[in-house]
Amino acid sequence: MLNLGGPQTTDDVGTYLERMFLDRELIPLPLQERMGKFIARRRTPKVQKRYEQIGGGSPIYAWTKRQGELMVQWLDRLSPETAPHKFYIAFRYADPTTADALQRMQADGVKRAVAFTQYPQWSCSTTGASLNELWRELLRLGLRDTFAWSVIDRWPTHDAFVAAMAKKVCEGLEQFAPDERQSVLLLFSAHSLPLSVIERGDAYPQEVAATVQAVMERLNFSNEFLLAYQSDIKPFKWLGPSTERVIRDLGARKRRNVLVVPIAFTSDHIETLHEIDIEYAELAHEVGIVNFKRAPALNDDPLFIRALAEIAAEHLGGGRLHSSQYKLRCPGCENAMCRTLLNPAPDALLRRAGRPAAAVYPDAASHHA
Amino acid sequence: MLNLGGPQTTDDVGTYLERMFLDRELIPLPLQERMGKFIARRRTPKVQKRYEQIGGGSPIYAWTKRQGELMVQWLDRLSPETAPHKFYIAFRYADPTTADALQRMQADGVKRAVAFTQYPQWSCSTTGASLNELWRELLRLGLRDTFAWSVIDRWPTHDAFVAAMAKKVCEGLEQFAPDERQSVLLLFSAHSLPLSVIERGDAYPQEVAATVQAVMERLNFSNEFLLAYQSDIKPFKWLGPSTERVIRDLGARKRRNVLVVPIAFTSDHIETLHEIDIEYAELAHEVGIVNFKRAPALNDDPLFIRALAEIAAEHLGGGRLHSSQYKLRCPGCENAMCRTLLNPAPDALLRRAGRPAAAVYPDAASHHA
Repeated sequence: MLNLGGPQTTDDVGTYLERMFLDRELIPLPLQERMGKFIARRRTPKVQKRYEQIGGGSPIYAWTKRQGELMVQWLDRLSPETAPHKFYIAFRYADPTTADALQRMQADGVKRAVAFTQYPQWSCSTTGASLNELWRELLRLGLRDTFAWSVIDRWPTHDAFVAAMAKKVCEGLEQFAPDERQSVLLLFSAHSLPLSVIERGDAYPQEVAATVQAVMERLNFSNEFLLAYQSDIKPFKWLGPSTERVIRDLGARKRRNVLVVPIAFTSDHIETLHEIDIEYAELAHEVGIVNFKRAPALNDDPLFIRALAEIAAEHLGGGRLHSSQYKLRCPGCENAMCRTLLNPAPDALLRRAGRPAAAVYPDAASHHA
Repeated sequence: MLNLGGPQTTDDVGTYLERMFLDRELIPLPLQERMGKFIARRRTPKVQKRYEQIGGGSPIYAWTKRQGELMVQWLDRLSPETAPHKFYIAFRYADPTTADALQRMQADGVKRAVAFTQYPQWSCSTTGASLNELWRELLRLGLRDTFAWSVIDRWPTHDAFVAAMAKKVCEGLEQFAPDERQSVLLLFSAHSLPLSVIERGDAYPQEVAATVQAVMERLNFSNEFLLAYQSDIKPFKWLGPSTERVIRDLGARKRRNVLVVPIAFTSDHIETLHEIDIEYAELAHEVGIVNFKRAPALNDDPLFIRALAEIAAEHLGGGRLHSSQYKLRCPGCENAMCRTLLNPAPDALLRRAGRPAAAVYPDAASHHA
């Protein structure tokens, strides 16, 4: 289970930020080593204070562990032929790291592994960075041939995920008085990306937008909605509209009721618990939004757990090593190691070969003959 | 039928460009009147040459007329209770203008009117500008109460439209040798927008992305795909990745087979016939893309005609004046007249009242109970 991770205690914030700012695949800096360490050190006290305000650390490890435990229970039932299933957590910037996960897998004698991104939508800055770290660490640790791999690299419009998201929106709406619900604006918010990443051809904005559309279709377009992007860091130009600016504008427009829906992350983390619940809530209050709420994160919602298990089961039974998009490097990519797949799992390929050959074009044509 | 329109002959190019550059809702300029006329005059010869190269004028009037004729035939059958149906063309920058359409409607004694955007995805720069022109012209011509209005303001993921688009992609793929088809990259291309419009909160990129996802789902993700944006005009910063840059990058990456799929416009026009078929094709050749093709435009494809008729019929029977998004002005909007609806059609409202009250939240909840 790949994710960015978060510091479990305020003491871990320094290491966490340092790993983040040393990652060229996330934040390319001139003189990466020196600049990265400098920025990380300078930001640490400020970020520590934020983690203090949300209880002293990030809950992402606890949530991911619970998601993993519940997911494999379901998965053993959905896919008994591949059971027993185990989960390992590999965080990109926090413990347990990718190396931790790989070493535990080796100790447990694992042979077949699925790299399962916990980011619903692809971005080279998130899933891409996690996977590149995985392939690098496998080589560094001499484990190139130890595990046979396949990859779940994205699931932006998977039905079960969309259903779980729609449920969370409904739960969010229940925080408003019944006679106000119809007038609530749904403000979908995803982490932003530098425009340079967008211009390179990153799939993220397309896939985030697709999730939003699927959730709204599921809700039968019950409410007005907007998609905005949060957490940009100066001085780069980031993809907009910015969630912060949208909140200001909605206040100026005298909008009473706003429900923020985090759409690109599946657990509570600093961006929901601090940025939305504390910073944006304060801002919303200042600009006159009367009821400013947030939809709960997916966390351990049973529908979401089932979605994770279904996505994994479909992957295991689907005869594919990865999505049809995984091997397509961004047109502007300059990172030659992107879209690697070391030691691909032969069972995934075998299963595919055992099926009737997919007759994609005739099939597609018959839909609209 | 609202659209931007195009010059029917090269003699019309000057007027067409002038109307375009005088439209603050499309291209806000300092000293709009003077600057707009100046830029239009300066660009005219260059643009005239392009229209000469595609046969002396834009085919958009001919296509729209044919679409309208065929659509109303279907519509009379799909919705006999609202028949007979007539269509009128209102172009924003070419003849017949909005005023032309309104005067003909008045002469014909029309009472009930649907403003039907021919842009599948909403943008304030396209559908928004056309609708604002409509409300302005109604007032200017003293026709405020002559017609009872409702609006079809977007249809980015309508099933029948998506099916028609998927068919066009299949037809595009048939231009490649059978053994090359699997390796064709689908390059969805939509007209770009200035970043200032995106930052204001325009729905366009979200809805274009949703169309792309729906088409790819329909095609069962048969091919790798990208979404890029074309036709940006300097010196503004526009939404990327740019189609032109993507073509260069794909060439550098030694991609052999590329199919461009215009995704935000339904008829052939200068951006398909000249920009893609001539300019980008030349570029593709230069950078080494061996087979560079374009999916046919929807034009008078029977599936697309049916889509138009179905969208209209569902609107007429749906009891709604507009989509659930129409009344939501962009958060950063400074144009107070946006999202107007003059003289709303009482029959649309009545039909809604006659139906059982929509129980949106319980319904939505039952999906994932």
